[in-house]
Amino acid sequence: MATIKVSSPATVANLVCGFDILGLCINEPADIMEVALLKENTIVIRSANGYPLPLDPLQNTAGAPLVQMLKECNINTGFEIIIYKSIKPGSGLGSSAASAAGAVVAANHLLGNIFDKKDLVRFAMFGEEVASGVQHADNVAPCIYGGVTLIRSMFPLDIIVIPAPPLYITVIHPQIEIRTADARKILPERVLLKDAVKQWGNVAGLVAGLMKSDYELIGRSLEDVIVEPARSVLIPGFNEIKKQCKEAGALGGGISGSGPSLFMLSMEKITAEVIEKVMKNVYDKIGIDYHTYVTAINYDGVKIIE
Amino acid sequence: MATIKVSSPATVANLVCGFDILGLCINEPADIMEVALLKENTIVIRSANGYPLPLDPLQNTAGAPLVQMLKECNINTGFEIIIYKSIKPGSGLGSSAASAAGAVVAANHLLGNIFDKKDLVRFAMFGEEVASGVQHADNVAPCIYGGVTLIRSMFPLDIIVIPAPPLYITVIHPQIEIRTADARKILPERVLLKDAVKQWGNVAGLVAGLMKSDYELIGRSLEDVIVEPARSVLIPGFNEIKKQCKEAGALGGGISGSGPSLFMLSMEKITAEVIEKVMKNVYDKIGIDYHTYVTAINYDGVKIIE
Repeated sequence: MATIKVSSPATVANLVCGFDILGLCINEPADIMEVALLKENTIVIRSANGYPLPLDPLQNTAGAPLVQMLKECNINTGFEIIIYKSIKPGSGLGSSAASAAGAVVAANHLLGNIFDKKDLVRFAMFGEEVASGVQHADNVAPCIYGGVTLIRSMFPLDIIVIPAPPLYITVIHPQIEIRTADARKILPERVLLKDAVKQWGNVAGLVAGLMKSDYELIGRSLEDVIVEPARSVLIPGFNEIKKQCKEAGALGGGISGSGPSLFMLSMEKITAEVIEKVMKNVYDKIGIDYHTYVTAINYDGVKIIE
Repeated sequence: MATIKVSSPATVANLVCGFDILGLCINEPADIMEVALLKENTIVIRSANGYPLPLDPLQNTAGAPLVQMLKECNINTGFEIIIYKSIKPGSGLGSSAASAAGAVVAANHLLGNIFDKKDLVRFAMFGEEVASGVQHADNVAPCIYGGVTLIRSMFPLDIIVIPAPPLYITVIHPQIEIRTADARKILPERVLLKDAVKQWGNVAGLVAGLMKSDYELIGRSLEDVIVEPARSVLIPGFNEIKKQCKEAGALGGGISGSGPSLFMLSMEKITAEVIEKVMKNVYDKIGIDYHTYVTAINYDGVKIIE
């Protein structure tokens, strides 16, 4: 029975100014998934470390993409998926995307790589639909392509890899719950044109900064005048963390996806480690539990490890 | 008496999706300006080819920037400026920007290049204020820096040159009048967040396309869901021109600045020449007079020619 093991990493969607279009793949945390080819046309899902996962494939973020994949390739086969979940659901670190992306990359490999990466993103989006009710690609695209990705357009799907220089990422996941649906509801339906202009100036600056390896420009562009002002009120300590981290040398950062995790980018690993201490201090004072990660850009995305 | 002659080129602001932040410098049309250093602290303005120009320096787009420049450098000197105007005021091709940018580059050269390009943009913006009542940089920045420029932020001023591959630009200037103030008034104060997201996806795609020399991506990103739908109603034949030019092989294009000039980008010069015929045909049928230009990216901006 052909079996494959993959590592499927966490992702940071939005990257401050790039709401719904930018995403970044990071090394840690990452889920491990074992996928086996089955002779019967069925999809079996198992949780390896006690995370309660829906076992109905159509209700599971790893299962729904494979149902769609099998529908399109018309091969009489199935998959068994064992998931060692490390990325916490609801963390804002692309947990559902990692399950979906890991499943499709592994399954595609077992089928002889008959689909390209864009197809895999398309399949993985069915997993996002299970998780949040909406097909979106700003986590699954960086998870599958690696590095920084731009979703220029959803219909038709247009994914562009943005070359990025080495960056260190500090993440703190405060143990509070924000539902993606609530984080969406808090957003205004309309925004001031002058704010939108500021935002697309920053988005353009961020893309140019990444492609020029201009760290100062990256830092200056990490400004969000539209989504962050609305969502940051849901996250205790947000302003304090941001202020202190920038004073401590971070280029900038903000809410990861729809939160509650916060991230900061740094040019040097040593700075990213200092930032971790700064973040911990803030939440220690507030009295909220947390997990932290100091990690780097994952340029590969989902990786086959066995 | 030290004298210098410069060529100050036309510019295309906005570049479809980059309203108020992107601009492109083109080779033609261009104004010629002769600037001489005077011993007295005065600014003298002359029109060389009959264009009626305001002769009060503070009311003149070339004069006001020099008044500001002299104020800041505290040198007891003055300038005589002779302007051979080729870029028609009100064309949407950065006519006032060319006068302002040409004046400051020439004057700075005569003063021994004591100011950097960013200072020159800052001075030139006083000329834009004379022309339109508002300081803006999306024409003066590409005119001074050359190529494609991004104004990431106005306050503080942050200008980034976006590397761009060779492109051919076809411009048609229909002989109709659109006042910049009217073109601004027609814009909505608020826009749908989902439209803003589309727009910044395209802005990011355009910057990435230019920096990757990915012509197809440039073409796909030349889409404006916010400003063009409002402003294009002011320009007869707009939809017809756009449709026919894209069918004839243009990458894409739209309104130059606040119009009425229209521009199209092409990968090959021969295509840009075909596009010129297509544009002429449309306005011949409508019965509107026009000027056309087939030109290329001007990577130098204002150039000293003598």
